[in-house]
Amino acid sequence: MIKVGIIGATGYAGAELVRLLKNHKEAEIIWYGSRSYIDKKYAEVYGNMFQIVENICKDDNIDELADMVDVIFTATPQGFLAGILSEEILKKVKIVDLSADFRIKDVKVYEKWYGIEHKSPQFIPEAVYGLCEINRGKINENTRLVANPGCYTTCSILTAYPLVKEGIIDPNTLIVDAKSGTSGAGRGAKLPNLFCEVNENMKAYGVATHRHTPEIEEQLGYACGGEVTINFTPHLVPMNRGILATEYASLNKKADGTYPSYEEVKAAYDKYYKDEKFVRVLEKGVCPETKWVEGSNYVDINFVIDERTGRIIMMGALDNLVKGAAGQAVQNMNLLFGLKEDMGLDLVPMFP
Amino acid sequence: MIKVGIIGATGYAGAELVRLLKNHKEAEIIWYGSRSYIDKKYAEVYGNMFQIVENICKDDNIDELADMVDVIFTATPQGFLAGILSEEILKKVKIVDLSADFRIKDVKVYEKWYGIEHKSPQFIPEAVYGLCEINRGKINENTRLVANPGCYTTCSILTAYPLVKEGIIDPNTLIVDAKSGTSGAGRGAKLPNLFCEVNENMKAYGVATHRHTPEIEEQLGYACGGEVTINFTPHLVPMNRGILATEYASLNKKADGTYPSYEEVKAAYDKYYKDEKFVRVLEKGVCPETKWVEGSNYVDINFVIDERTGRIIMMGALDNLVKGAAGQAVQNMNLLFGLKEDMGLDLVPMFP
Amino acid sequence: MIKVGIIGATGYAGAELVRLLKNHKEAEIIWYGSRSYIDKKYAEVYGNMFQIVENICKDDNIDELADMVDVIFTATPQGFLAGILSEEILKKVKIVDLSADFRIKDVKVYEKWYGIEHKSPQFIPEAVYGLCEINRGKINENTRLVANPGCYTTCSILTAYPLVKEGIIDPNTLIVDAKSGTSGAGRGAKLPNLFCEVNENMKAYGVATHRHTPEIEEQLGYACGGEVTINFTPHLVPMNRGILATEYASLNKKADGTYPSYEEVKAAYDKYYKDEKFVRVLEKGVCPETKWVEGSNYVDINFVIDERTGRIIMMGALDNLVKGAAGQAVQNMNLLFGLKEDMGLDLVPMFP
Amino acid sequence: MIKVGIIGATGYAGAELVRLLKNHKEAEIIWYGSRSYIDKKYAEVYGNMFQIVENICKDDNIDELADMVDVIFTATPQGFLAGILSEEILKKVKIVDLSADFRIKDVKVYEKWYGIEHKSPQFIPEAVYGLCEINRGKINENTRLVANPGCYTTCSILTAYPLVKEGIIDPNTLIVDAKSGTSGAGRGAKLPNLFCEVNENMKAYGVATHRHTPEIEEQLGYACGGEVTINFTPHLVPMNRGILATEYASLNKKADGTYPSYEEVKAAYDKYYKDEKFVRVLEKGVCPETKWVEGSNYVDINFVIDERTGRIIMMGALDNLVKGAAGQAVQNMNLLFGLKEDMGLDLVPMFP
Repeated sequence: MIKVGIIGATGYAGAELVRLLKNHKEAEIIWYGSRSYIDKKYAEVYGNMFQIVENICKDDNIDELADMVDVIFTATPQGFLAGILSEEILKKVKIVDLSADFRIKDVKVYEKWYGIEHKSPQFIPEAVYGLCEINRGKINENTRLVANPGCYTTCSILTAYPLVKEGIIDPNTLIVDAKSGTSGAGRGAKLPNLFCEVNENMKAYGVATHRHTPEIEEQLGYACGGEVTINFTPHLVPMNRGILATEYASLNKKADGTYPSYEEVKAAYDKYYKDEKFVRVLEKGVCPETKWVEGSNYVDINFVIDERTGRIIMMGALDNLVKGAAGQAVQNMNLLFGLKEDMGLDLVPMFP
Repeated sequence: MIKVGIIGATGYAGAELVRLLKNHKEAEIIWYGSRSYIDKKYAEVYGNMFQIVENICKDDNIDELADMVDVIFTATPQGFLAGILSEEILKKVKIVDLSADFRIKDVKVYEKWYGIEHKSPQFIPEAVYGLCEINRGKINENTRLVANPGCYTTCSILTAYPLVKEGIIDPNTLIVDAKSGTSGAGRGAKLPNLFCEVNENMKAYGVATHRHTPEIEEQLGYACGGEVTINFTPHLVPMNRGILATEYASLNKKADGTYPSYEEVKAAYDKYYKDEKFVRVLEKGVCPETKWVEGSNYVDINFVIDERTGRIIMMGALDNLVKGAAGQAVQNMNLLFGLKEDMGLDLVPMFP
Repeated sequence: MIKVGIIGATGYAGAELVRLLKNHKEAEIIWYGSRSYIDKKYAEVYGNMFQIVENICKDDNIDELADMVDVIFTATPQGFLAGILSEEILKKVKIVDLSADFRIKDVKVYEKWYGIEHKSPQFIPEAVYGLCEINRGKINENTRLVANPGCYTTCSILTAYPLVKEGIIDPNTLIVDAKSGTSGAGRGAKLPNLFCEVNENMKAYGVATHRHTPEIEEQLGYACGGEVTINFTPHLVPMNRGILATEYASLNKKADGTYPSYEEVKAAYDKYYKDEKFVRVLEKGVCPETKWVEGSNYVDINFVIDERTGRIIMMGALDNLVKGAAGQAVQNMNLLFGLKEDMGLDLVPMFP
Repeated sequence: MIKVGIIGATGYAGAELVRLLKNHKEAEIIWYGSRSYIDKKYAEVYGNMFQIVENICKDDNIDELADMVDVIFTATPQGFLAGILSEEILKKVKIVDLSADFRIKDVKVYEKWYGIEHKSPQFIPEAVYGLCEINRGKINENTRLVANPGCYTTCSILTAYPLVKEGIIDPNTLIVDAKSGTSGAGRGAKLPNLFCEVNENMKAYGVATHRHTPEIEEQLGYACGGEVTINFTPHLVPMNRGILATEYASLNKKADGTYPSYEEVKAAYDKYYKDEKFVRVLEKGVCPETKWVEGSNYVDINFVIDERTGRIIMMGALDNLVKGAAGQAVQNMNLLFGLKEDMGLDLVPMFP
């Protein structure tokens, strides 16, 4: 039985970790860390957990925690983990970090987009970017630190990855127009997240400045072996869960001057995803819907070729709290401990 | 492995049965019946099931089906099962009926409230009303026909049952004001169920005439050993899932002329529910919220005593598609086959 | 042109006052008071007002304000107006108070339910309870202080008033089960009002203790000429606007031992509401829907007689920010200044 | 008083025309045409209109109607008006067509995208494309036929128009990612529009094939004096009203090799919109929100320059039923009859 500690267990991502791990046969949560609710019963913070979780919320003492558990999930604000991480901790415990602290290899890029100083850049090189479908080979029992990808980034990257990797699209023409449910904004009591402000409303935010941009650019850069600069625009949608990314890019013409066919593009997706349980490339003509993946670890993907404009429109959908956060974190945990990758993740999407 | 057939697999309750049974270790669905979608892939009707269910929808031939499976779930319109049931079928297969056909013992009451003739009243006596927490003793390997309770009724009855049974309230003063998410209205393409008609809207319907009324009255009548007449008012709420029942009744005074105390009422609930996994009586002062049970088989219950008026306000919440339909049906199936009652129902409520 | 000052102009009720008064031909807002946003442009607080309102938010200096305007609307927390009101102010300016400070005649009742000391009880006697349809005769150019009714109370009282007044129901059997959109909870940045907490959720709150209870009891007491004690249970619904009150009461039998007929009850409603522009008693069998009154000053009412139980189920729907707050306040203002009562209130409900 | 007939008065756009015209001082609806509800009271079809509209729905006899009214609004399916229009009718009455029949000048383009034959192409040349802010000069008392623009197109065109017209962006790089509330899908009882299918869900549809594409291309082609080919992707959002268009285009470099500055782009917008009442270019850094325009005739616009990619992100928001349909139709009617262009359109956006 893997002993688990969660720091930040009372945010929405932390709570989703609890939901998933309660049904995981090989893991047991023994520490519910929550700076805001110390000494309060977890089930008082999340009424759905009444009679399911009997634990009390604890402070976020990572040193104490490192002695007690096998793996720590940090579902914490940016800068938190970088501020307290040490070699001593990493010698004792594996860490899956749901924040952005160790996702970006170039610390200058991190500091520019996040506007904070990185307090432990020495651990960046060893951190593995935990996008399992792409980096599975690097996540195993020897790995100590996994940087769990962002919700928007998981969706954006997986949707475009095969086409970038195979040179089917020009990555520098990529435009990602992403739409997210409101749980992505967290559980902080802020006016813009009030029901009456979000409901019956839609808006873009963080236009040209959102922090997930460099994360997408870095990973797609690895895929094509070059620098990638993209546009990424997130939007807030009046729903609890779900991210839909609509992505546009110019198709590279083939040697004969024509655009790749549906079958050729489909083959590129199949090359990478045919055996991936959690990536579903839909049937021709079917557009992904966020509701079809709700509560599950799936990413649904499809595409349409527009010969009129020479562009392809790719679409990807996932549940931001599952594949976009807690589900992927559990997937990484499974890899870290040599378990079946999908253990605890046999979640059938809930509809309606 | 229990072989399962579903008739009406493409309605919302049928689809929820599919979701639950896909994660049930001892059951396997081998027949997805759907008159509306014969020969269509189930996953084309419910995109969430892509790559999870590969089956094709079939017609609802119950005779053929009875030879192939161990249990049939009928998630069908009122009158359907009564119209085709026969001794021959019941000799071959167990049936859990999610419609109202066999819920009401007095066929005249059924015919009056439902406005249709009952075509096989001879099976009514043997049908067991499948409210497991109350009738568990009657549901076992010898039972052939279970009448799965309605969504509103499950919530309404469980919320008031201990107080009626223990004589704490006067059942004829009972008023049930119930609120339901829209999935309760089914997947029929009807104008009143369109998004723009339901969203940002709330209304009562079926006032004084809703068909769940006599079902509640009959069951509470058994509890108190007399005739019960109540008011039941359902409302449509702009949410997918969830029923909240707010119930009002006059408290019977004790011999000393005082009203029962919080502790006395709580003790009555505990008497019946303390060991019930799926009934959670909340802590004092906490009002049930439908979201706290979403996706799970729980019923959350609580109450407030109002000495000013001599009434008690009881509140119950459940997920109409789970404890109010498919979850309870699986619970009944487990009992019918001698399995652990909660098998496949370890569903942690999803929040948000 | 009536000069208007609003104290609390940046709450939802205050903002609705702004929306309504911008289209009022005889009123002009010259003071947008908001303690939270002093010196900020009003249109930065409410983006919908961009290029419509050019004013800056000001502090809530009522003395200064009293010299500048003809009427002040106070859309402020309980206790605010009572804490600053003086004879000097009332000599200069009329006040329509949207808080509860002057709604309840018995100061002890106020202090008990609100848990605060009333700082200026000397003005309670002269305050008129501004439920125009009932107290129209007392609101005129001589009136100085109007206590604008609460949202739940306006709906609850108007729905039952004729039947209480005419002795058709027993007021002490009255149970009001009310459901409200989330704007009723105000614009404060509180966790329970976050989108993800309210959306797809429903719950009761303030059970047996909600402060609108004594307000309903007092007014219905005047109607029947006796003391009235009722149950009132509010619920939070995932929609922005709208209150639906479902009300239950026992019918008094007539001299001949029968219950009053539909026509007799309808006649009672017509007696009071036939000529009321803002009260619409719907056609037989039609249940009020909150969406049918959204954005308007209407209250829609209807009822169903249940001879089985001897009760009547009454239903009322209004927009909590219009007839439940700002619209009724404007209606009162019109009466205070001898204008046409519906001036500025020709609002056609918006659907969908 | 202008006498108005509406054909298609019971669709959502038709109903919004009714809402707006009820408050229009110079117009009176005397014909509520509705093929689906002939002889039914209009207020039974739209309960919000109870006691506001007393009329009965009538058949859509345009010949009879043309003799009775001054202007006909056709809020009808594609092909309807083209199928019945005649010189005789146009001699008697002005027509504002809310369908697409006369929006596209090249009948071949119309027939290709709409898949139907155009039955009266002879009237296409005289039809004026009723985007008032651009074509105001062509809409006057001599105009007989106005093609009221589509909802997506109004938003998409107005958001990009000044930059295309002024050569600031390359129109052939334009990508419009648009999101719409569900009322845009109409009031037809179709499964995909059910509450439970739309709520908590988001998806793209009509990818690369949506019929508003050629309409946008044609109008922007006039603006730049050349052919324009764009990508347009609509999405369905779980809200009643509102369209948000997020538009991407490459900036043309200036002679000095640099990109235009914020001020230069802003100046281009101001050149066209500074005096436009219904177009609000927001303050720097503020993203349009659909809720800020709800119920009103405004279009809110803003933009962000991204020097990293050389692109500009433009955003536009409107209410699809007002500026995207009925509001613009009334605006056109006002121009057709020489009235003040904003008469009846002083609608303050409703929030929340």
